[in-house]
Amino acid sequence: MDMIILFGGSSYEHEISIVSAITLKDKIKKHNLKFIFVDKEREFYLIDKDNMKSKYFSTFEYKKAKKLNLVKNGFEYKKLFGSEKISGVVLNLIHGRDGEDGKIAGMMQFFGIKAITPNIEASVLSYNKLYTKMYAKEIGVKVLDYKYITDDSYIPETFPVIIKPVRLGSSIGVTIAKNIEEYKYGLDVAFEFDSGVIIEEFKEGINEYNLAGSKAEEFIFSKVEKVKKDDFLSYEDKYLDFSRKEAKTEEVSKELEEKLKENFKKIYNTIFEGSLIRCDFFEIDGEIYLNEINPIPGSMANYLFEDFDEVIEKVANSLKFEKNIDIDYSYINKIQMAKGK
Amino acid sequence: MDMIILFGGSSYEHEISIVSAITLKDKIKKHNLKFIFVDKEREFYLIDKDNMKSKYFSTFEYKKAKKLNLVKNGFEYKKLFGSEKISGVVLNLIHGRDGEDGKIAGMMQFFGIKAITPNIEASVLSYNKLYTKMYAKEIGVKVLDYKYITDDSYIPETFPVIIKPVRLGSSIGVTIAKNIEEYKYGLDVAFEFDSGVIIEEFKEGINEYNLAGSKAEEFIFSKVEKVKKDDFLSYEDKYLDFSRKEAKTEEVSKELEEKLKENFKKIYNTIFEGSLIRCDFFEIDGEIYLNEINPIPGSMANYLFEDFDEVIEKVANSLKFEKNIDIDYSYINKIQMAKGK
Repeated sequence: MDMIILFGGSSYEHEISIVSAITLKDKIKKHNLKFIFVDKEREFYLIDKDNMKSKYFSTFEYKKAKKLNLVKNGFEYKKLFGSEKISGVVLNLIHGRDGEDGKIAGMMQFFGIKAITPNIEASVLSYNKLYTKMYAKEIGVKVLDYKYITDDSYIPETFPVIIKPVRLGSSIGVTIAKNIEEYKYGLDVAFEFDSGVIIEEFKEGINEYNLAGSKAEEFIFSKVEKVKKDDFLSYEDKYLDFSRKEAKTEEVSKELEEKLKENFKKIYNTIFEGSLIRCDFFEIDGEIYLNEINPIPGSMANYLFEDFDEVIEKVANSLKFEKNIDIDYSYINKIQMAKGK
Repeated sequence: MDMIILFGGSSYEHEISIVSAITLKDKIKKHNLKFIFVDKEREFYLIDKDNMKSKYFSTFEYKKAKKLNLVKNGFEYKKLFGSEKISGVVLNLIHGRDGEDGKIAGMMQFFGIKAITPNIEASVLSYNKLYTKMYAKEIGVKVLDYKYITDDSYIPETFPVIIKPVRLGSSIGVTIAKNIEEYKYGLDVAFEFDSGVIIEEFKEGINEYNLAGSKAEEFIFSKVEKVKKDDFLSYEDKYLDFSRKEAKTEEVSKELEEKLKENFKKIYNTIFEGSLIRCDFFEIDGEIYLNEINPIPGSMANYLFEDFDEVIEKVANSLKFEKNIDIDYSYINKIQMAKGK
């Protein structure tokens, strides 16, 4: 299968996306991989597999690569005479803005390109932490209590709290505040990045579990990963984390695993079809809470699957084009006829 | 100001969009209007103002018009030597799929084109009636009770009910069922169009009010329209409705008007910035309920505004590009340096 890894993007997670793409280069073995880079100016470049090294991008050497246009059913570059088409199933690996906010998904649908990606709805529900909470409550999945704010007039009654800009991933702009001074500083940081912020009680020593998965004919689940951490992953930690190829899983009880899978299924629903997502859960007194949905997890959480190639193939084969709408101008014709009489 | 009316789309409301665009041709007088048509194959065509007649589209004569490509900062067509750029502020007038589901909004942002349009988030929240309900509840706006279903196992206890596919506008696939037979038939119809359906109690003789508006430096409101109808508007009724140039408003009390505006402001929030929307409300025992949000109302609800040209100009001038994200490869450089040691 021809598979196009689409990465980069005008996103705070641009560099993380490059690391994800380089990591997947060696993890996807069965398919014919092509690499398309979206630079910070949002220009598309066709990158040789041999050039898939971080330095090629950080030194702007990529600018020598072939520039592509997005066209019907694929990408193309101009040749001296005519043009050359690049086609295949796209794997959307743009973390954060552009990739996870629905832009790439919408463009792929509009231009008739099959893509492993959260669709527009799934993107919006997972990209914005407020909507994730709304959605979880609607479908009967528990979430921690929260306060959504758009200015600094709210002061929490107890500390510590965790302050999160609603729209960013990879811990960008996130602060854990132990007192009011740290809180005020954390709000300033968060509002630098977003106009909306979520405040939650910060629970120390909480059990956190990640479960990745997708749905082809039936659900596909990864191993469960128990997150080990003293505090929480900073951007730098996560950066390194995105290049992971091996799991750090530990055995969890069958009962817990089932509970996590039940919650995953509710979340995935039909909304997330076509994507491979990772759900991050908390476990508190035996109850499962959704923390967040990563609709394009770092290096696609490849390390959590036994046979990642097979998973990717199954998901790719399950993709469908948007339903065709036949437009026959029957209403306009009816009106034309009525006018003619 | 150069203004591009973008209309058509791969949508059940494609024909309605043509009618909307033709209607606006005469209503927007102060700006230099250009017309770009998206046909059912999702190709872009530059349409001469003189050809803005419904027959031009229904007879497929538009295929003789210049085909455009979407490029950075605008659209372009190829000339014998080089290419010609079409630029201006886009007015997204594609009703339903493509226009109201976030695709056009995302594409305009990605390609750096200013557009009067609901953004991706606003599109998803208003295009899907389930998310509209979720959103309204979150921000403290009342909605009628509902049941969201994805199969036919649910049977209501009382009738009449109204059955609505979650994602379609213009009453497409909507049925009012007075008994269980009509209900079953209505479900079949609704599931033809969508995988998710909302069931609500149908309240006869309910007061319905429409209020359109936008936000530039401050909120801009239209006149309040009291909807007159025996039953509800069918697709055909709405079709004719989309070509309206005059209001059918009637005086409403100052108190009611204020209540509607308060609810509109809560809904519009910061989420709908950049768009001109129409909110359809119910009034029951003095309480206001949100029925639905039309983020691209038929012919932009021009007939509800005193000076539509001025409104459009204010909204266009308030548009902003997405925040630029500076990517300096500091993390990749840091890792490169660490490796070098």
